[in-house]
Amino acid sequence: MPKRRGDADDPTNTGLDRVFHALSDPTRRQVVERLGRGPATTSDLARPFDMALPSFTEHLGVLERSGLVTSEKTGRVRTYRLAPQPLEDVNTWLAAQRVLWTRRLDQLDAFLNDLKEQQK
Amino acid sequence: MPKRRGDADDPTNTGLDRVFHALSDPTRRQVVERLGRGPATTSDLARPFDMALPSFTEHLGVLERSGLVTSEKTGRVRTYRLAPQPLEDVNTWLAAQRVLWTRRLDQLDAFLNDLKEQQK
Repeated sequence: MPKRRGDADDPTNTGLDRVFHALSDPTRRQVVERLGRGPATTSDLARPFDMALPSFTEHLGVLERSGLVTSEKTGRVRTYRLAPQPLEDVNTWLAAQRVLWTRRLDQLDAFLNDLKEQQK
Repeated sequence: MPKRRGDADDPTNTGLDRVFHALSDPTRRQVVERLGRGPATTSDLARPFDMALPSFTEHLGVLERSGLVTSEKTGRVRTYRLAPQPLEDVNTWLAAQRVLWTRRLDQLDAFLNDLKEQQK
């Protein structure tokens, strides 16, 4: 069987583990949504959340370690940017699932059509 | 701002939390891949994994609580099926991120084109 992303022995596995884990929290998903609109500083990102800053920066750390965001410090200000590749990796995995799933439904359709033909 | 899936106050949020969490593990992703090819029993699903059965059924429990799979027991045999809606929800969230991201790149393009025009 050819290796696919998401297989247990695929080296991108740890990557997908981290990305899915990073996206399993609503605060972190909202940060990703915000960064989709453009780069933002820590305080820009923290503003909508009623959360202590250390907890919030821990969320940013999880996002950064997953590769979903990158950051750069200028003076005392850290600016975050979205890195689209990990979202593409998730999309690739999902698309592969859809191919399997759709093929199965097509086979089921074909089977039911054969059955109908036989009953004619 | 209109409510979107993935917003902190969106009721589908907990759903996405659970689905992303369920997908953050390679064993669970492989089970989803396997079930994309058709229903399977606990022992069918466990076969490829070198894992104690209680650990493996715990993974199945995480998948079932996320809504990604459903199961049915006939006699002593439990059969699992993929439920495609949660994967669709992930896809919807991802597609929304891509719209934001692409729109931003378009705006950047437009801005750079304006700049070029002004320099003519």
